[in-house]
Amino acid sequence: MSIVNRQVRLAARPAGLPKRTDWSFTDEAVPALQPGQFLVKVTHLSLDPAMRGWMNEGKSYIRPVNIGEVMRAGAAGEVAASMHPDFEVGAIVAGNFGVQQYAVSDGKGVRKVDTRFAPLPTWLGVLGMPGMTAYFGLLDVGKPKPGETVVVSGAAGAVGAAAGQIARIKGCRVVGIAGGTEKCRYLTDTLHFDAAIDYKGADVKAGLKEHCPDGIHVYFDNVGGDILDAALARLALHARVVICGAISQYNNTTPVRGPANYLSLLVNRASMTGMVVFDYAARYDEAAREMAQWIKEGKLAAREDVVTGGVDAFPETLLRLFKGENFGKLVLAL
Amino acid sequence: MSIVNRQVRLAARPAGLPKRTDWSFTDEAVPALQPGQFLVKVTHLSLDPAMRGWMNEGKSYIRPVNIGEVMRAGAAGEVAASMHPDFEVGAIVAGNFGVQQYAVSDGKGVRKVDTRFAPLPTWLGVLGMPGMTAYFGLLDVGKPKPGETVVVSGAAGAVGAAAGQIARIKGCRVVGIAGGTEKCRYLTDTLHFDAAIDYKGADVKAGLKEHCPDGIHVYFDNVGGDILDAALARLALHARVVICGAISQYNNTTPVRGPANYLSLLVNRASMTGMVVFDYAARYDEAAREMAQWIKEGKLAAREDVVTGGVDAFPETLLRLFKGENFGKLVLAL
Repeated sequence: MSIVNRQVRLAARPAGLPKRTDWSFTDEAVPALQPGQFLVKVTHLSLDPAMRGWMNEGKSYIRPVNIGEVMRAGAAGEVAASMHPDFEVGAIVAGNFGVQQYAVSDGKGVRKVDTRFAPLPTWLGVLGMPGMTAYFGLLDVGKPKPGETVVVSGAAGAVGAAAGQIARIKGCRVVGIAGGTEKCRYLTDTLHFDAAIDYKGADVKAGLKEHCPDGIHVYFDNVGGDILDAALARLALHARVVICGAISQYNNTTPVRGPANYLSLLVNRASMTGMVVFDYAARYDEAAREMAQWIKEGKLAAREDVVTGGVDAFPETLLRLFKGENFGKLVLAL
Repeated sequence: MSIVNRQVRLAARPAGLPKRTDWSFTDEAVPALQPGQFLVKVTHLSLDPAMRGWMNEGKSYIRPVNIGEVMRAGAAGEVAASMHPDFEVGAIVAGNFGVQQYAVSDGKGVRKVDTRFAPLPTWLGVLGMPGMTAYFGLLDVGKPKPGETVVVSGAAGAVGAAAGQIARIKGCRVVGIAGGTEKCRYLTDTLHFDAAIDYKGADVKAGLKEHCPDGIHVYFDNVGGDILDAALARLALHARVVICGAISQYNNTTPVRGPANYLSLLVNRASMTGMVVFDYAARYDEAAREMAQWIKEGKLAAREDVVTGGVDAFPETLLRLFKGENFGKLVLAL
């Protein structure tokens, strides 16, 4: 009796926001396992802004998803069958399983997770790639010092919320930028950010002026566009800008808007540095251990926005990211 | 008998290219010297792209020149009278004397120069601020390693020519971008750059692709705009972009055009860092000694574009910089 695996494949390279027709849906029999392989029944898909970039042609930090290929996705699930000595049936695992119901894996890049410590969605969020991105982007690239002012955009998102909290743990003043009063209240009341700026309801430049009287020492950018420009205009001397993402620009059908205020880097002898989390793979364990400890101590909170549905719900659920509709790490629970 | 000092003052903040009416001209008696002061008869004015920025209002790395104030300028001249123990009459000095025929100084920021070693214009060029800018911008910020590819824009200008040559001395492949075949031939034939791209006659993107097959490791930018974008599109992994200037943007009447390709910083885990030469004041001597040695050894060539005229010729001469008409360090010899 063969198991049917429903899959979401990239059908076309999107112009602008991905449309339903940019995807195709296939039902395929799960192949027989070879020695050294195991089968994962995927239960949770990680939906991340970076996915939009993977759908584009052209050189990037990772090869594009090919047309016709199962969409790349971080995911978690349970080992359903195994011919691999290290991954026994019933083990809960996280890895790059793709947007599909079942994945065959050889264990490369797969880690076992302990759901007694934290629920699965958390392992895709603050204990997964978004958490790693925040940890290394902030600490290794941003290099915040105690007492400095750290500003984070996309601050209610998976990466931003973690970056801001880590900055607080390191003794910084933290200002978050997010869309809507509810998200902003969450940042200040639940995550204890020093201030939050609602970019939908307030002027970001004025907010930064109010909340960063001594300028911005570290700006952790997830969004690009106007907000990046507003932050650049407010840099302190020797500021570090971490370019983690640019969600406001990912669905452009016109060219990316470059930061008009980039000469603030000159005026302030500041730097703007890009980062890609995969470069830190050798140090993931170190970060995971420290972050788990912070969670235990109640210093690092995680919030996931878990949408329930089949893989067919993937296209529409993904769009929530680009509309700013998710509140915390966006996960599709199959 | 009083000496008349003709001066050029900022009369209005320019919109776009500075017009003659943005300047005023005054004749003033040189005041009597106080103890600790000396009088410099200015013989050479340094004309630099940065001057355009000093004419604008607003926070920058140095306070703006006030309306009605003598225009700030690096300059050189001869001590004509002295009540200062360290600066005897006849000494040749360089300092921030302003656009005027005579300057009264207390010696702060003034250095004596040896015209037996190099002619005065060279002390305003490769042995002056432009040379210091190239030295520290390239070595301290760009951190080139032997064998790496260094690209310099504005490469036939005072800073660019020095930066490119220093990169060669440090064992790098050097590609210069300049306007016109004559300048490009100078870069390759006289300064021994490995290649030159004529941005007026050729496609910079195509040129960078041809001459930087392994990408750009260090990009030293003096110009901004399209050329910055072309260089960003060609960065190597972990590239360093030095933001030294953006002459293409200084006279904009519309907002500065930000680099649309800035996300190449993310893709390539690269950095873009601004620098201001004044930060390195404590190390000028170190740089000057090393550069003088390179000049002696014939490794570092300098070229000045010396225009002769009175201070009244300053406004029009300055414009040569923004039209790309100067060829080497632009100096106005009074």
